Amino acid sequence: MVPRYARPAMTAIWEPEAKYEIWFLIEAHATQKLADLGVVPQDAARALWAWWETNPGIDVAAIDAKEAVLKHDVIAFLDWVAEQVGPQARFMHQGMTSSDVLDTTLSLQLARATDLLLEDMDGLLAAIERRAKEHKYTPTIGRSHGIHAEPTTFGLKLAQAYAEFDRCRRRLVNARAEIATCAISGAVGTFGNIAPAVEAYVAEQLELEVEPVSTQVIPRDRHAMYFSTLAVIASSIERLAVEIRHLQRTEVLEAEEYFAPGQKGSSAMPHKRNPILTENLTGQARMIRAYALPALENVALWHERDISHSSVERFIGPDATITLDFALARLTNVIDKLLVYPERMQANLDRMGGLVHSQRVLLALTQAGITRDNAYRLVQRNAMKVWESDGRLSLLDLLKADAEVTAALSEAELAEKFDLDYHFKHVDTVFDRVFT
Amino acid sequence: MVPRYARPAMTAIWEPEAKYEIWFLIEAHATQKLADLGVVPQDAARALWAWWETNPGIDVAAIDAKEAVLKHDVIAFLDWVAEQVGPQARFMHQGMTSSDVLDTTLSLQLARATDLLLEDMDGLLAAIERRAKEHKYTPTIGRSHGIHAEPTTFGLKLAQAYAEFDRCRRRLVNARAEIATCAISGAVGTFGNIAPAVEAYVAEQLELEVEPVSTQVIPRDRHAMYFSTLAVIASSIERLAVEIRHLQRTEVLEAEEYFAPGQKGSSAMPHKRNPILTENLTGQARMIRAYALPALENVALWHERDISHSSVERFIGPDATITLDFALARLTNVIDKLLVYPERMQANLDRMGGLVHSQRVLLALTQAGITRDNAYRLVQRNAMKVWESDGRLSLLDLLKADAEVTAALSEAELAEKFDLDYHFKHVDTVFDRVFT
Amino acid sequence: MVPRYARPAMTAIWEPEAKYEIWFLIEAHATQKLADLGVVPQDAARALWAWWETNPGIDVAAIDAKEAVLKHDVIAFLDWVAEQVGPQARFMHQGMTSSDVLDTTLSLQLARATDLLLEDMDGLLAAIERRAKEHKYTPTIGRSHGIHAEPTTFGLKLAQAYAEFDRCRRRLVNARAEIATCAISGAVGTFGNIAPAVEAYVAEQLELEVEPVSTQVIPRDRHAMYFSTLAVIASSIERLAVEIRHLQRTEVLEAEEYFAPGQKGSSAMPHKRNPILTENLTGQARMIRAYALPALENVALWHERDISHSSVERFIGPDATITLDFALARLTNVIDKLLVYPERMQANLDRMGGLVHSQRVLLALTQAGITRDNAYRLVQRNAMKVWESDGRLSLLDLLKADAEVTAALSEAELAEKFDLDYHFKHVDTVFDRVFT
Amino acid sequence: MVPRYARPAMTAIWEPEAKYEIWFLIEAHATQKLADLGVVPQDAARALWAWWETNPGIDVAAIDAKEAVLKHDVIAFLDWVAEQVGPQARFMHQGMTSSDVLDTTLSLQLARATDLLLEDMDGLLAAIERRAKEHKYTPTIGRSHGIHAEPTTFGLKLAQAYAEFDRCRRRLVNARAEIATCAISGAVGTFGNIAPAVEAYVAEQLELEVEPVSTQVIPRDRHAMYFSTLAVIASSIERLAVEIRHLQRTEVLEAEEYFAPGQKGSSAMPHKRNPILTENLTGQARMIRAYALPALENVALWHERDISHSSVERFIGPDATITLDFALARLTNVIDKLLVYPERMQANLDRMGGLVHSQRVLLALTQAGITRDNAYRLVQRNAMKVWESDGRLSLLDLLKADAEVTAALSEAELAEKFDLDYHFKHVDTVFDRVFT
Repeated sequence: MVPRYARPAMTAIWEPEAKYEIWFLIEAHATQKLADLGVVPQDAARALWAWWETNPGIDVAAIDAKEAVLKHDVIAFLDWVAEQVGPQARFMHQGMTSSDVLDTTLSLQLARATDLLLEDMDGLLAAIERRAKEHKYTPTIGRSHGIHAEPTTFGLKLAQAYAEFDRCRRRLVNARAEIATCAISGAVGTFGNIAPAVEAYVAEQLELEVEPVSTQVIPRDRHAMYFSTLAVIASSIERLAVEIRHLQRTEVLEAEEYFAPGQKGSSAMPHKRNPILTENLTGQARMIRAYALPALENVALWHERDISHSSVERFIGPDATITLDFALARLTNVIDKLLVYPERMQANLDRMGGLVHSQRVLLALTQAGITRDNAYRLVQRNAMKVWESDGRLSLLDLLKADAEVTAALSEAELAEKFDLDYHFKHVDTVFDRVFT
Repeated sequence: MVPRYARPAMTAIWEPEAKYEIWFLIEAHATQKLADLGVVPQDAARALWAWWETNPGIDVAAIDAKEAVLKHDVIAFLDWVAEQVGPQARFMHQGMTSSDVLDTTLSLQLARATDLLLEDMDGLLAAIERRAKEHKYTPTIGRSHGIHAEPTTFGLKLAQAYAEFDRCRRRLVNARAEIATCAISGAVGTFGNIAPAVEAYVAEQLELEVEPVSTQVIPRDRHAMYFSTLAVIASSIERLAVEIRHLQRTEVLEAEEYFAPGQKGSSAMPHKRNPILTENLTGQARMIRAYALPALENVALWHERDISHSSVERFIGPDATITLDFALARLTNVIDKLLVYPERMQANLDRMGGLVHSQRVLLALTQAGITRDNAYRLVQRNAMKVWESDGRLSLLDLLKADAEVTAALSEAELAEKFDLDYHFKHVDTVFDRVFT
Repeated sequence: MVPRYARPAMTAIWEPEAKYEIWFLIEAHATQKLADLGVVPQDAARALWAWWETNPGIDVAAIDAKEAVLKHDVIAFLDWVAEQVGPQARFMHQGMTSSDVLDTTLSLQLARATDLLLEDMDGLLAAIERRAKEHKYTPTIGRSHGIHAEPTTFGLKLAQAYAEFDRCRRRLVNARAEIATCAISGAVGTFGNIAPAVEAYVAEQLELEVEPVSTQVIPRDRHAMYFSTLAVIASSIERLAVEIRHLQRTEVLEAEEYFAPGQKGSSAMPHKRNPILTENLTGQARMIRAYALPALENVALWHERDISHSSVERFIGPDATITLDFALARLTNVIDKLLVYPERMQANLDRMGGLVHSQRVLLALTQAGITRDNAYRLVQRNAMKVWESDGRLSLLDLLKADAEVTAALSEAELAEKFDLDYHFKHVDTVFDRVFT
Repeated sequence: MVPRYARPAMTAIWEPEAKYEIWFLIEAHATQKLADLGVVPQDAARALWAWWETNPGIDVAAIDAKEAVLKHDVIAFLDWVAEQVGPQARFMHQGMTSSDVLDTTLSLQLARATDLLLEDMDGLLAAIERRAKEHKYTPTIGRSHGIHAEPTTFGLKLAQAYAEFDRCRRRLVNARAEIATCAISGAVGTFGNIAPAVEAYVAEQLELEVEPVSTQVIPRDRHAMYFSTLAVIASSIERLAVEIRHLQRTEVLEAEEYFAPGQKGSSAMPHKRNPILTENLTGQARMIRAYALPALENVALWHERDISHSSVERFIGPDATITLDFALARLTNVIDKLLVYPERMQANLDRMGGLVHSQRVLLALTQAGITRDNAYRLVQRNAMKVWESDGRLSLLDLLKADAEVTAALSEAELAEKFDLDYHFKHVDTVFDRVFT
């Protein structure tokens, strides 16, 4: 976790306080159910909840001090709680293993983290939608291979991004379901000393699903799927970030990250305005992608469990979610305030002297009865002159002056082929698909 | 693709013949719809289908020869088809771009590949289920950290695997939905020269979904999600493979890959029987995992598209699906024929002199009123003697001879704590969760 | 391996013929040394070499047929050789294990592959050097963040690439040394049934180093380092490929992949010339990078060896080297024929009205005694007018008309700050560092 | 960075204080050289060094506060220094760019981090060497595929590890050389406003090499190679960690991580002693490996530079080096205190009834004139009986009772084939290779 790429709400989920709070809830709910089953006295559960209702602070330092002596984090925690609650607390944790607590806690932390990510995603989608509708019919050049192809609209570009993040949102919902499970099943998952009913009860209280088969641990294919999904989302963030970086290039400059009045882009070069936010997002995407790898390697634990996954998750649990939360928020902000330059888009569209309409002329000549080969030759011989003039000549003018062309198509027919609006007749269709 | 790790049905999907067949179907369906819309003559579509009904072979070599001249694969194909079909064929591909054909074809290839993978998965699940039920109550030691923990059953181990691959199956269904889309939207996705209705019709005929926004290409977050899912499945394969490798270790030998009578494990060492199939699967899992990475890097294409994804997909399209198909089939075979040794499982369970029951004695002493600390001390002082004897002494015998212990628990009570069946009372619960 | 991304010389290294040839050499050299040590008859070695001198073809199909029966590749090979050579051949392989042959063969294949890669690299370096020197003083704009910064030369850009690939060449030499080792040490590496002198002799004959400690296998940290090095080289290929893709963008167009007269960039859009070779290289780089991952996971083999690395290496051995060979050759070709447009470079340099010289004016004003803050304000107020005019105004003209500026700097002094050559005074220094 | 996997000396390198200290040194050395070149007054350099000699603390909070206002870290730092030093400080940073400072600082931090890693490696090598020599002739079973193969010694196992880490040490030295470069070359690397002599001087003072071509930034292929090398080292750590985890398995138990008297392996199961340190190292290795990926993706920066690498390096610079430092130290500790059980090694060696000697009997029968096929059959028919008895029968006894065998080999000859020492005759050779 890099503090400058972290936001408080997400970071809080991974703080010791939050973790210990979940530990308490798991233990208290389990004790409650054990009491209901007659395994432990009802007073035990009552004492725990009574203390909890006093809204006690969790003394992380005190628990840490105990752990330093006892070399066991869960026992240290239980000890500290027992000191606060009194003798009734000794019935806590009956028949459970530490992993029952630790793994269910990780599930809940990841589920909560995902809830924040879903909020972030909603914010991002709203921002994209707003800008997409604003620029639904703002003409801009579509580029394949970095080369001008045919006209599109800036709104369509953003509609694509919307559809992509909408898919990412659904993936995130799936990913949340993957890891939102509860396991309280004992040393190797046989429920030797604790009834399955306890697991069911705790799961219900924490709004988690019951893990069908745990073996001291929740199986790590779930977490692998979770972090792989974050990696895909990061890649979509990268795509939009790279798009903006391209649009802000000096020679393109169709859009720009917001630049405050009085801001300095470079201390030495006063003319500079750099797309540093989206470059920054590009790097963050690389990190979030990388975190999926060790999650995948964590799956093949030995037999019922080994603990090699644990050190990995101490890194990637916080690092992947905190960084993705930050990245989604930053991207939302970028889109929200993006400076868009329709005039420059139009200028770029026009800079090739109408070459971007060559396909339509080609098709029209064909439909007028000229063979495709001949039509191609006619268009190309004029297009190449425009190309060589670096767009100073006009393709339409040249075509109008080409007798072979005008033998097939009238001036009016030709002119119509250079109509920008022709390309936008289905923008509405696409918007309907995406935004309804 | 490594031929020895490839099976014909999957390989066939990636052969040129199969690809060209899909190309034809896309072109013919599109022509059909264009004819229905009045854009091209009905004869054009009729001619294509009439030729197709003659069940013509596709002459890959002839198309390749054309491509060598024309330097364009789709044009080479269209040319060849035109030669076969006659002049009506010139209406094919009207308003379409090559990517419309190429990307929709990749979708269909991946969808078909996934159908095979789903069949594989069903076979694997059936094999695991059969063996799980066969060994539902076969006692075996559960191990955490590679160290004996408490008893479980071999059926439970396999039930875990079943639940994991059942999740993988659902993920595969999701992954198929991710990539099973059709795009016929023209040069930059604006439907400039082709109506959305064509796309809808072709999608329906090929049983694909319409891609909501394509930009010459289908967005690559879909493929990233697809290959990431295969990576997760590969990791689950690795987990089960590693389990079997562990079980076959000389010192453990609780299960073994099938070894045919007369087979030689090693030319030099006649005593060897090596788990080479599961070792082999471990390596294949590494490869399938690796293929997810470039798929993730493919997402951030430039603007409406660049073609950097294409060379990647020429590798990973076939390599990931062919290898996963092979791996699933090989694992199914391994599970199906796995030699399981219940006596050896029992012997391993017993080899620690009953230490695996220490927790139950501890709990019983506590419930009999001894403080937990004292109870721990009592059990431990006897357990350590068993440990030091390497399991030659019996924990039960020692406890029966310990006056402090017998003051709290009778011989009968003690003996009951060593009852293996105690651990299996919820096996049925877990099986119900998994297999119904 | 994708055939279209493969060249014959590299592919040949990975053909069965080449493999079996190495197998024979290892066996024959080992037999020779065993004969010299008196372990086997001199006639045995003599018979093998006598046969070899007849330049016999290796009958791959025959060996494959034997393997299908014997289920053991090395035994199948030895059998076939024995049939060709006669009874003396039975002394082959004395005291050796299959892995002695297989691992040493892989070493030799990788070493040979690396020799080809080094040749490729030399070709690439030569091409870059030639173009760098050709454009040593061709002015072009340097860009940071995709935004115009200050002038540089196209030669400097290429000098950077040269220095980077020169480092890659040295890394490749190191990587070759990593894997060029020979192991003939028996079942677990103790030389139980074969003397270390045999290993030393074979190593010498094959120009390999002796592996200090092998344990049936050569340790896989060597291969991990090898494939990681290829991954770094691939990333450098990507860097140069991305540079060219940027330079060919419509709005930039300072350089272009070679485009043959009469070539068609797009069947539909006659104006298109796409950087498809460098896009293709970008994708190939992703693949070569991905292959490093399973090589890293191969390191942690179990005990003296497990065979999980083997399936991985059947993929990545050929795939990584063949693809890198192809990529280096393709990049060499791209650089060699690159169309470079100095006029367009100059036009781009000029398009911001001289803003790229703002730093020098700022420094000059400071040196003329104006505080940095004031100097910044003076330059900025003129620079912003140029910026807003999209480069139609000239910064120099505006500065000359700014009384506060001219109070500090004369017109001649100002004009000197816009001298392009100022930036090139150390080009020679850098070229000396790189090319000598 | 996870605090529990961090050691203070390495962490200190990445603290703001250490970073600012390097910033000062770079600026002060540069100013010194500029003064010597007559570009700035000698007093400027003198003032900086005079202040530095007062051993001033760096007030991170004050600099951070300035950065919050100025939005530029280097300017904030320069401002703060200027306040401390006085007006002479205004000559600092003349002609330099922020990246000159930032990139050279990263080089120095990585170089220092590597120095610590090299010390760690020396400690690890010393520990392995000591234990290897201690157990040079401790017999143990060599295992391939997890299956008993032939005898080796525990010392040889460790000698292999030594040779592997010795290679890792050399790789680390190479990796250090890769990144230990200094760049002070201005906005796009042309030395426009600063002479190359300044770069050379600062490089010399900081014991770095001059970067031959920088382009505002040091090229990232260097860092990619650096972090890839750490990934290889992590994989070697994993290999040794996995070996120990295997040796500690209940059924094997030939070695164990140190377990203090009175320690508790499990709160619930008193018999447990888990290899948690090496499991933990396995997870850490996965993380360090993962960090190489974004470093590889960082290479292809756009044109002269983009800043996408920066966010990546804020993560992996500290995280990879801190975690590797911790892992090397932890592994050293594990090896140093490893509990080794020679009796158990011998017992495991013996548990297969002498089967591990089957190859020698086979060879002896062949040398006695029996055909290989017949010899194999003779050994196998006895070996299988031993196998089926799970090692309770003795292969030697059975062979002595087999008339066909004794017709070829005397009892004494047979007995000699079961001599363990036979396998150890070249241990000295290997040790000589490794430790001299």
